Amino acid sequence: MEIVRSNSNARMSQMVVYNGVVYLAGQVDETSQIGRSVLEQTRNVLAQIDGYLAQAGTDKTRLLTATIYLSDMSQFAQMNQAWDAWVSPQGLPTRATVQAKLAGAEFDVEIVVTAAV
Amino acid sequence: MEIVRSNSNARMSQMVVYNGVVYLAGQVDETSQIGRSVLEQTRNVLAQIDGYLAQAGTDKTRLLTATIYLSDMSQFAQMNQAWDAWVSPQGLPTRATVQAKLAGAEFDVEIVVTAAV
Amino acid sequence: MEIVRSNSNARMSQMVVYNGVVYLAGQVDETSQIGRSVLEQTRNVLAQIDGYLAQAGTDKTRLLTATIYLSDMSQFAQMNQAWDAWVSPQGLPTRATVQAKLAGAEFDVEIVVTAAV
Repeated sequence: MEIVRSNSNARMSQMVVYNGVVYLAGQVDETSQIGRSVLEQTRNVLAQIDGYLAQAGTDKTRLLTATIYLSDMSQFAQMNQAWDAWVSPQGLPTRATVQAKLAGAEFDVEIVVTAAV
Repeated sequence: MEIVRSNSNARMSQMVVYNGVVYLAGQVDETSQIGRSVLEQTRNVLAQIDGYLAQAGTDKTRLLTATIYLSDMSQFAQMNQAWDAWVSPQGLPTRATVQAKLAGAEFDVEIVVTAAV
Repeated sequence: MEIVRSNSNARMSQMVVYNGVVYLAGQVDETSQIGRSVLEQTRNVLAQIDGYLAQAGTDKTRLLTATIYLSDMSQFAQMNQAWDAWVSPQGLPTRATVQAKLAGAEFDVEIVVTAAV
């Protein structure tokens, strides 16, 4: 079976498709600055995910799994506010959310998803 | 290929089946209270996993992967005590265990598994 | 579909192959000692991954995903130095990197990968 990679730099691919599944890299708000709210960061992350899924010919109604990393679990409600407004009632993935420091101080939420293509 | 979702609320599904794989949401001990031991929490989490796998028509002998989050790595041995008593010698999944704060103070262990259906 | 497990002990398998995908357990530098640099640990982890992938009849050019746990995100650049020298430009997986305390004080980096077989 073919592996299709896209949006690759020298380090990783933002998206890999294989055997009916699209895997996305961990998405952080690419435009974030220190002090941006988790609500806004999450909205931007989810918009980035929409863009990649569209590029793979699928969308959020076909999500399989989500892993959410928050730099501070006290922002769980803010993240969920953006998440709940975004997910499709007919396309709810499994999910796990844990606290973890991320790769830059301007990033407070990172989301990894897989979806069916 | 069809996606089958179950035990969904407005936010996520506890289980998604696609292309021969069942994905479970991160399982915490749903009945936990602050102060409950990691040993007991882990036993309860694993019982919940058994229940979901049965619902998907599979069981722990067909586990593929497990990711375990512990709120305090000093409880690694307690978690393993419950894990080692539970896993099937013929069905050992891959595993990764890391420390991470979880979504509620009453939760000290969260386990994400995938299995073949 | 058959599940093939290998390098199993009483707790987990280091590798599981199913439906065209090989899943590896979280790899830490098995020979690590406290004080070993993240650069060296990462090189050893990636060599271990090469070994398991070879055993499964595949290699790093067919990587799908990577999840990287660092005990201290300030070592991100050191990890990347080893990573960037290792990955294949034609086989770049998706990736997510977060900070998490690992199962032993001698381990500062743990990597979980999946690959196509």
